[in-house]
Amino acid sequence: MIGPDDVRAAARVLDGVAHRTPVVRSRTLGEHVVVKPENLQRAGAFKFRGAYNKIASLPGGTDVLAFSSGNHAQATALAASLLGAKATILMPTDAPHSKLEATRGYGAEIITYDRYTEDRDAIAEALAAERGLELVRPYDDSMIMAGAGTAALELVEDAGVVDTLVVPVGGGGLIGGSATIAKDLGVRSVVGVEPQAGDDWKRSLAAGRIVSIDVPRTIADGLQTHAPGALTWEVGSRLVDEIVTVTDAQIVEAMRFAFERLKLVIEPSGAVGIAAVLAGIVEATSIGIVVSGGNVGADRFAELVS
Amino acid sequence: MIGPDDVRAAARVLDGVAHRTPVVRSRTLGEHVVVKPENLQRAGAFKFRGAYNKIASLPGGTDVLAFSSGNHAQATALAASLLGAKATILMPTDAPHSKLEATRGYGAEIITYDRYTEDRDAIAEALAAERGLELVRPYDDSMIMAGAGTAALELVEDAGVVDTLVVPVGGGGLIGGSATIAKDLGVRSVVGVEPQAGDDWKRSLAAGRIVSIDVPRTIADGLQTHAPGALTWEVGSRLVDEIVTVTDAQIVEAMRFAFERLKLVIEPSGAVGIAAVLAGIVEATSIGIVVSGGNVGADRFAELVS
Repeated sequence: MIGPDDVRAAARVLDGVAHRTPVVRSRTLGEHVVVKPENLQRAGAFKFRGAYNKIASLPGGTDVLAFSSGNHAQATALAASLLGAKATILMPTDAPHSKLEATRGYGAEIITYDRYTEDRDAIAEALAAERGLELVRPYDDSMIMAGAGTAALELVEDAGVVDTLVVPVGGGGLIGGSATIAKDLGVRSVVGVEPQAGDDWKRSLAAGRIVSIDVPRTIADGLQTHAPGALTWEVGSRLVDEIVTVTDAQIVEAMRFAFERLKLVIEPSGAVGIAAVLAGIVEATSIGIVVSGGNVGADRFAELVS
Repeated sequence: MIGPDDVRAAARVLDGVAHRTPVVRSRTLGEHVVVKPENLQRAGAFKFRGAYNKIASLPGGTDVLAFSSGNHAQATALAASLLGAKATILMPTDAPHSKLEATRGYGAEIITYDRYTEDRDAIAEALAAERGLELVRPYDDSMIMAGAGTAALELVEDAGVVDTLVVPVGGGGLIGGSATIAKDLGVRSVVGVEPQAGDDWKRSLAAGRIVSIDVPRTIADGLQTHAPGALTWEVGSRLVDEIVTVTDAQIVEAMRFAFERLKLVIEPSGAVGIAAVLAGIVEATSIGIVVSGGNVGADRFAELVS
């Protein structure tokens, strides 16, 4: 179980390494709303915070392994390279070429597997054992959660006052770390946002236990988890006040809003918090929204808004 | 003629009012390149700096008039509203609906005119005389230039060292103010960037006098001036070291780059500096690029990158 001091310790580890992203406002959202744009974070997403915090905690000389086709891959690759560790990233053969290239660009070794015929976990386990690599999980790890929570710490510090914190929910690493520090800083309510098709956390909170769903069909590719993690559930089930959902159409609307008003590029998963506030699903006297990332290609964006 | 102290005075006027936009870097551009994203400025462009500095310099109770279909309209409307002045903005009847709405949203009165049959200057003069309004010019004014120069002041302060400063050139207000302060801060070279089709400044510098061209056909709608201004030419002809040009295709490439790597939305005019550096047209040991604005609709962006 992590506590607020773990998030504060992570903030010290990340000081001068992660960008302290600004907080931004928009008249249209309302003067009571602040946005924390982690799309401007290194490697384009909050994931860098957790990956760096985790790898920095390992004994010197430890090389790492991660599996991800998304932001966690790039974050792990970059964090490892900054810390002088070697990163091996297991990615599906059909991952977008741009993501493979970006991850390789950070100096990682990419190993691909066929996600329809090969067992990712078995490959990862074999690689870890054979090469002595430490697995950097995408969310279900207390150092990852604590690192992710530093985004919320900065948001609350820079916004001054936040009544309600709004956070995207996939595996639960971001909301776990964020809720841990936010509640300690006096934030009244922590609201998670999921895509409507991927409401595993909402169902789990309603049931009072981890509920698993089919991999959801949504444009929010970073939030296509099918169940809360064991550790993130322990934290989230205790500290998260509510989970709301948004449709893919509301997500696109939020991406367009961020583009035209905030001049920021936000990926579908990163836009769910803004979507919930724009749609009036979350209302409060003061709201802080964490935007998780901005890794979306221009062509994909054009396709989504057209 | 303005001097560096005018820019410093403008910085004090703007302190706490204009956003101090960050400086950002990207591995692809190179670690020696810093970008100043004025698309994140209030009203989406550096224009707010000059408009606010100008209106703040007027006697209290002075209401203002501007003509613009672009960023200067929104900047003047917002600055006036913050200073308790009334803004009247003269816009062509065929200006994009979104720009009309945005300007009205800042509390300005919009008066439209037919740009094919009516004389804008005559209408402006009549309005100014009849209503006692002070004209806020888009660039050919020393307070406007000094305000614009604060973007370069911040860039150099935050970047530490800048050998070459790269600035978009339309009427010359931004480069005039920027060159004034940059040279005082030890920047070696100030390079202006124009769209290839709109090279009035390049031709003027080559000729050693103001050269006028036809209104250029380019996607960089903010840089469609046909000649340097009288005041901006006085400053620019003395302090600008070189003018380079970029094609519309290079501008689109730069907009895509900013979108995918910097996660920033940049309008065509704002992207010319990045375009020049990406294309290798400007090279130096350390480069500061001013990105002038980000007012481009999602649909227009989609059209441009497709």
